[in-house]
Amino acid sequence: MCLGKKMFFYPIFATFLAMVSFGTVRSEEKRFVFTNSGDSIQLDSFDLSENLPVAISNGWQVRLKTLRGGTQEGVQVITLDNGELHVTVVPTRGMSILSVEQTGNGKRVFGWDSPVKELVHPNLMDLESRGGLGWLFGFNEWMTRCGIEFAGHPGTDVMRTNTGDTNELNLTLHGRVGNIPASEVELIINDQPPYDLRLRGVVEERMFYGPQLRLVTEIHMLPKLKQFRLLETIENVGASKQEYQIIYHTNFGSPLLDENAKVVIPAKSVLPMNQHAADSVSSYDTYLRPTQGFVEQVYLVEPWSDDGGMTSVVIHNAEKELGALMRWSTSSLPYLTIWKNTAALADGYVTGIEPGTGYPFNRRVERHFGRVPQLAAGESVAFELEYSLLSDSREINAAIGGVNKIMAGRVPEIKKDPPSIPDFD
Amino acid sequence: MCLGKKMFFYPIFATFLAMVSFGTVRSEEKRFVFTNSGDSIQLDSFDLSENLPVAISNGWQVRLKTLRGGTQEGVQVITLDNGELHVTVVPTRGMSILSVEQTGNGKRVFGWDSPVKELVHPNLMDLESRGGLGWLFGFNEWMTRCGIEFAGHPGTDVMRTNTGDTNELNLTLHGRVGNIPASEVELIINDQPPYDLRLRGVVEERMFYGPQLRLVTEIHMLPKLKQFRLLETIENVGASKQEYQIIYHTNFGSPLLDENAKVVIPAKSVLPMNQHAADSVSSYDTYLRPTQGFVEQVYLVEPWSDDGGMTSVVIHNAEKELGALMRWSTSSLPYLTIWKNTAALADGYVTGIEPGTGYPFNRRVERHFGRVPQLAAGESVAFELEYSLLSDSREINAAIGGVNKIMAGRVPEIKKDPPSIPDFD
Amino acid sequence: MCLGKKMFFYPIFATFLAMVSFGTVRSEEKRFVFTNSGDSIQLDSFDLSENLPVAISNGWQVRLKTLRGGTQEGVQVITLDNGELHVTVVPTRGMSILSVEQTGNGKRVFGWDSPVKELVHPNLMDLESRGGLGWLFGFNEWMTRCGIEFAGHPGTDVMRTNTGDTNELNLTLHGRVGNIPASEVELIINDQPPYDLRLRGVVEERMFYGPQLRLVTEIHMLPKLKQFRLLETIENVGASKQEYQIIYHTNFGSPLLDENAKVVIPAKSVLPMNQHAADSVSSYDTYLRPTQGFVEQVYLVEPWSDDGGMTSVVIHNAEKELGALMRWSTSSLPYLTIWKNTAALADGYVTGIEPGTGYPFNRRVERHFGRVPQLAAGESVAFELEYSLLSDSREINAAIGGVNKIMAGRVPEIKKDPPSIPDFD
Repeated sequence: MCLGKKMFFYPIFATFLAMVSFGTVRSEEKRFVFTNSGDSIQLDSFDLSENLPVAISNGWQVRLKTLRGGTQEGVQVITLDNGELHVTVVPTRGMSILSVEQTGNGKRVFGWDSPVKELVHPNLMDLESRGGLGWLFGFNEWMTRCGIEFAGHPGTDVMRTNTGDTNELNLTLHGRVGNIPASEVELIINDQPPYDLRLRGVVEERMFYGPQLRLVTEIHMLPKLKQFRLLETIENVGASKQEYQIIYHTNFGSPLLDENAKVVIPAKSVLPMNQHAADSVSSYDTYLRPTQGFVEQVYLVEPWSDDGGMTSVVIHNAEKELGALMRWSTSSLPYLTIWKNTAALADGYVTGIEPGTGYPFNRRVERHFGRVPQLAAGESVAFELEYSLLSDSREINAAIGGVNKIMAGRVPEIKKDPPSIPDFD
Repeated sequence: MCLGKKMFFYPIFATFLAMVSFGTVRSEEKRFVFTNSGDSIQLDSFDLSENLPVAISNGWQVRLKTLRGGTQEGVQVITLDNGELHVTVVPTRGMSILSVEQTGNGKRVFGWDSPVKELVHPNLMDLESRGGLGWLFGFNEWMTRCGIEFAGHPGTDVMRTNTGDTNELNLTLHGRVGNIPASEVELIINDQPPYDLRLRGVVEERMFYGPQLRLVTEIHMLPKLKQFRLLETIENVGASKQEYQIIYHTNFGSPLLDENAKVVIPAKSVLPMNQHAADSVSSYDTYLRPTQGFVEQVYLVEPWSDDGGMTSVVIHNAEKELGALMRWSTSSLPYLTIWKNTAALADGYVTGIEPGTGYPFNRRVERHFGRVPQLAAGESVAFELEYSLLSDSREINAAIGGVNKIMAGRVPEIKKDPPSIPDFD
Repeated sequence: MCLGKKMFFYPIFATFLAMVSFGTVRSEEKRFVFTNSGDSIQLDSFDLSENLPVAISNGWQVRLKTLRGGTQEGVQVITLDNGELHVTVVPTRGMSILSVEQTGNGKRVFGWDSPVKELVHPNLMDLESRGGLGWLFGFNEWMTRCGIEFAGHPGTDVMRTNTGDTNELNLTLHGRVGNIPASEVELIINDQPPYDLRLRGVVEERMFYGPQLRLVTEIHMLPKLKQFRLLETIENVGASKQEYQIIYHTNFGSPLLDENAKVVIPAKSVLPMNQHAADSVSSYDTYLRPTQGFVEQVYLVEPWSDDGGMTSVVIHNAEKELGALMRWSTSSLPYLTIWKNTAALADGYVTGIEPGTGYPFNRRVERHFGRVPQLAAGESVAFELEYSLLSDSREINAAIGGVNKIMAGRVPEIKKDPPSIPDFD
């Protein structure tokens, strides 16, 4: 597939999606319910080829499977294959995306090798363990959401208790949403042009005397395109104003990440998260080879966006043979965190490109800096992210051209010192 | 069904139950084992109509179902239907009762709308989370037991460790029993008059170097009666004296709860739990409409009982179209907590009528006030509660008459100030 | 089976095992995969007699079963029966061994009666609860491993966080390994002489920004022998040097443990763990009858070993009708803890004979005393333990003779005072 043809698809796709009524099923679509807790439905397996005549399936391959063994017993995975990309979604773990492979050769293009090898069932997770770092026992997906009541580092914050008092609450790393099984999962497939497919999931983050937040995600794909989108909303279904945080923790490892791999960002500003990151801020956009004993470096970026409110980031390997283009709407995701963890392969050689409502400081810090948005009762906020595979230098250069167009010759402000964090203790 | 006929049944039912040997199966009874962990039995589904000839089922409908999807994956529910009431029991969550509906029209008469929508599997619960308030992630049943090693508010208390020392223990809100799957569940149905049915459950709250407490509950129903009973025991199967606490957290929401709904209690005394409740103590027995930002008010009641040691409490809506009569033995449940939480509908508009061994202060506080009973090794204590649906003003007034008879013209002592709580820290 | 015949087997068995390539499957062996998470395999049940012609099964009985009901829902057990011993392994709980019974009469010879009656699924465990004593909610196996990142008492220790800082970590009692479902389980059975059987299990203790430790265990049995072995390795599959701890918490109750039961140890030194134990150090090797209110006594032993680096310990009942011989390699397991808990039967009448890399103090204390070994990246350490049933006084006396031979007339140093523990707080 030539680049011209692919680039031709971008506006078509955007226009088409704009016409889709988010969250509805049109008459020409086939709908398959995988999970609906309200109706007590959960399929143990599914294969689209057994449910839809091949003649109208337009090459789509969709399978649902329930994993067995070890800590993954009972975890479900759904694979969506459009003839170019093979996307593995994990509804049991909050609709995370494990990896993206190329159809046919099975080569993983998006994803990484975590020391955690199984998709750990939330039944076995204890987010409170290890001083609030328990989330790390299950961290291995390509894209996992952090949030949505809170995201970021563990630590204390204040909450309202059942007696109306305020008390200290121990926030746990990156919140709960990535470890909540989806309450609704359904596949919606269109047998009319453009033959698009949506996988819709609903994850409820609810408690009594606490937040009532609902995440609705739709993964949209078109046939034969090396691209897909997330169209998502967070809704406050409670009766009171509610804070929320979301970080799309998108993680790239080998083979995309390698020595001299590069991330290209239309950065307004780049800020090192701590002094350790500050020491290397001048090379925030390039990567080392797997390095024993490497300690994470985190950079906090404000990206520019285009006239349509979208920003573009490209990450590619040294030889420009493999890359990813990420585009998202900065109105709801104004901040970008670059997490560099070019550790030894066995420890997880990985970088996170993480659009978010804020940065991964503890919520109390984020609130101090005005980066914790709120939703009124019944209010929703929408998120839009687009991921594209870049397969050669021509595609990568074209995508970098898009970043440069947004940058428009402006020079990023590279801050030398980390921010001054108030001491709340 | 006319009230006279119903009231006629009350003493019959009481006498009949007195004759039942609690915990045994008589020769004329049919027994169906749903769960027995000792024999490694757990049915995935059950329908009485497929197991008992209709001719001798006397209209009983009993079904067991395993829920699928979201956080309820694997939770079992059992519905008991006697032709008047449709009772949904949750063995996986400690034999809680989700709701009571009217047979035929499916209208929920006992229950409430929690923001927590699914019956959360104990596998996913973390009682320790949120400073010991994790119980609130699963709180949505009509009747859930708090206890039985400890109930009430989180906070520190002392315990014996494995080295024989005493150490501080963080008690979690309302204890473990409501999040322990029952080890034994069986249905016992009598094909001779009075054709009664019992659902028996055993919940074991055990650990090494800790309490060995066994809850045995039997839900007793007769055909076509708008009433049922809980006959329960807690047994200390350990070798040492053991404290216990139990609160029957019975929660009413719409439509029974509405603006100007009323609770009628034969109260010896009424004590506000804190200053916030004290400010409204004069209206402790009436309810507001759903009120945004309402902070819970808790009242601590000592009820009078009749010559047979039973007390009666009525709760009914403003128009006296719908009500509940709760009766229980005050010898083992001498205290009653009224929890008013007339918050916005989305946040849980609900009141708890909560007979207990004590009040919901932290166990350390309860012990200070002499409200934490003990069981010697091998000793048991019995509990008896009766719930009746009241369907019109005549039934409600008759039940209020029963409360007034117990009150016998005495005037309750309404205390203006909350108790003085010792500071243990 | 006469003792001479049995003793004849010992060297044969040892030699034979030395020839086995640990972790490999030879051509003459049949292999049955029970669990392999990498291939998403987990059998729900298995019966060797349905999979192998009786003619070549040499009397082996092997069954896998998935338990139902209560807190054990979904836990798997595997029984290995060689015609003399019936060994019950629990892959879902880290390859623990629940009990050993005699074939035919079903009499339990190794095991104990914990107040915890069910094999609690790790899904329901919360190791962090009760100040880090949550492990006790599931403690009832005959042999459970403590470790392997840490073992011993709860308490604080230091760890590296994701920001490269060090922080305090709350260690939980006896670590995680006993509550991690095995990722691989397979049965390997040899249809050529000596017709031996191996049950191989792999338990992964991994996290991101944490230890990457892999336990591989093989339970080896020969037909008709009252004996079996554990051949195990722990491998550091991470990229950095890693501490580890393991204690083989092997627990004997009735009928082997009784009043005047005795443990015979080739002890170089015996040290009471605390002052309470010090008061009874002179009787560290004999046992009381079940004693209401008994507080555990723990003795820390350094055993001598023979020229082959193996030590032998015998435990037998008062009448010398029933005993166990434990042998293990002291190169990797140089320490032995004797845990005496001769409490009332209902509370758990039991003693632990616990070979380990150290003693059960908190890891911080163990590190202070130089008893926390490390593994370099990629390095492994091997463990070898042999358990034999002793069925009469002749067998017991012969085994005691073996202990005495190791002791070689030396006198153990019995220390009167517990060690001085540094205060780290």
